[in-house]
Amino acid sequence: MTTLTLPLSEARALVTDAMAACGHTAAEAGAIADHLLDCELRGLPFGGLARALSIAERIQTTATPRTEIRTVAETPVSATLDGGDQVGYLVGLRALETAVAKARAQGIALVGARNTWYTGMFSYYLEKAAAAGLAGLIAGSGPAVVAPHGGTEGRYGTNPIAFGFPAEPHPVIWDIGTSAVMHGEAVLKSRLGRKLSPGQAYDASGAPTLDPAEALGGALGAWGGHKGSGLALVVQLLGMMTGAAADPPGISDCGFLVVLFDPAHLTDAEDYRRRTEALAEAVRATRPVEGGEPVRVPFDRSAAGRAEALRRGTVDVPEEVVSALRRRP
Amino acid sequence: MTTLTLPLSEARALVTDAMAACGHTAAEAGAIADHLLDCELRGLPFGGLARALSIAERIQTTATPRTEIRTVAETPVSATLDGGDQVGYLVGLRALETAVAKARAQGIALVGARNTWYTGMFSYYLEKAAAAGLAGLIAGSGPAVVAPHGGTEGRYGTNPIAFGFPAEPHPVIWDIGTSAVMHGEAVLKSRLGRKLSPGQAYDASGAPTLDPAEALGGALGAWGGHKGSGLALVVQLLGMMTGAAADPPGISDCGFLVVLFDPAHLTDAEDYRRRTEALAEAVRATRPVEGGEPVRVPFDRSAAGRAEALRRGTVDVPEEVVSALRRRP
Repeated sequence: MTTLTLPLSEARALVTDAMAACGHTAAEAGAIADHLLDCELRGLPFGGLARALSIAERIQTTATPRTEIRTVAETPVSATLDGGDQVGYLVGLRALETAVAKARAQGIALVGARNTWYTGMFSYYLEKAAAAGLAGLIAGSGPAVVAPHGGTEGRYGTNPIAFGFPAEPHPVIWDIGTSAVMHGEAVLKSRLGRKLSPGQAYDASGAPTLDPAEALGGALGAWGGHKGSGLALVVQLLGMMTGAAADPPGISDCGFLVVLFDPAHLTDAEDYRRRTEALAEAVRATRPVEGGEPVRVPFDRSAAGRAEALRRGTVDVPEEVVSALRRRP
Repeated sequence: MTTLTLPLSEARALVTDAMAACGHTAAEAGAIADHLLDCELRGLPFGGLARALSIAERIQTTATPRTEIRTVAETPVSATLDGGDQVGYLVGLRALETAVAKARAQGIALVGARNTWYTGMFSYYLEKAAAAGLAGLIAGSGPAVVAPHGGTEGRYGTNPIAFGFPAEPHPVIWDIGTSAVMHGEAVLKSRLGRKLSPGQAYDASGAPTLDPAEALGGALGAWGGHKGSGLALVVQLLGMMTGAAADPPGISDCGFLVVLFDPAHLTDAEDYRRRTEALAEAVRATRPVEGGEPVRVPFDRSAAGRAEALRRGTVDVPEEVVSALRRRP
């Protein structure tokens, strides 16, 4: 796979142009590009420029046009958004901004969004919340492709969940998927003819499989045994609280739930931030296992990778992704 | 180990008498007994009648008397409680009741408690929240005895976290500890001369150990690799948001954080409850792995065990626990 080294401005323009070409305003295209570029900078190319192609494809193959994002329920501390089948990067951002405004005013906020798809990295939103001094969590449900522990049929989405806490030089953000293997990783391995690891998936008959194509026709496993599988159920139920379906068809109607809180309502927020930073430092200073690497705090690697990429001022993107974007999908 | 079969009323009286003998009012003793008896009924004897002995021992060996539970910060949607070094069964219940009242009035509530110890099963509180129509989560921090993934020194408590959702015939409640082995299990194995499983603990020099006594002088491992270890950090930070210490001395100053929300603020609550029940049923009906047991939903086993124990009307308790309680510790 040949990769091209692109200046950041050029990488961003490729995304904004492609997003404008499939019907987004300049502001919308810019918001999507900021998120995708942050994925590239953080070394997560799966959700980066390549994702712009998937977004364009999803929009071009959908008969019904998207509608406005609407607030369908609201109180001073909560809101439910109907995403109007718009891409999740826009709906998630609206949900996050709504939650930040409410949590800053009231101390806590619960905002849900449904009828959306591709909500991106939850850490992207929680980093913005942390910059506003807020801690919180985001959970997201989706199509039932993950089997509960002990089962062989899809009941849960790949269901990410994330928690974030304000800290300097960067927030502490834990952001995981609750499936044993990412859906996108199974798709990629299927394309490349590679195998899954044992215990990650079942075929349509319920037999364990290493074949990613069979897994995509069967079910992925849940991460973390019965404990992790329970968390996947929790995330599905949190997502469904937005009104999203338990098992929406195709790439649609994902649930996105944000809960933000202002630590200042419980304790001295400055002191709490300092104690968060002190704990993070103590974790990094933990004596490693014999022969092991230094212990990392969640988000450390992303922050370091992004800082390095920003110093370089470039990102490396597969040539075929760049040429497909240049063809204006 | 000889066990005695006790009628429920006798088991409860043993606890209330012991709790009254160490300075609790009748109402306080009853609240503690309800929680401990629920543990026995659900087949979790660790937190059952035996715990009454640990509570009495902790109170008798503490020089400074407990003080009133005080509300040290409050808004319409939040509160911080100083537990006055009272046992967590009382402080947790007060926090839960405060959160339920606020969430029913405002739709969401964030309540933290610090300066407490032994907060019990978080599912016990979330079952009460669910009975009030509320979903939510509870997280609890404690003394740093668990090493982060890749490390060999304690940085986190055994840090339980739980989420609950209203449903019939019983709520869906996921309630886990984030350590690879429970602290109490390590203590018990140490007493019985049994070994830990590989990968569960480190000795004081940082070497892996199977010896529970060495583990208690070193560190327990985190559950779930780097993902689970990150969750343990999340729970520690949630607990610390109450003002609790990152690493309190002995059995003291645990953090207990409750977030409750009323699904009716986001969506049709009745419909949501029905969809929760339908998903739970679909999970139970998932085709099992070959030769496997039926798939369970979190809390199913507890609810079934309790129903059976209530039908019997008795609990089985080790003779030495019963005789120690009869001696009025």
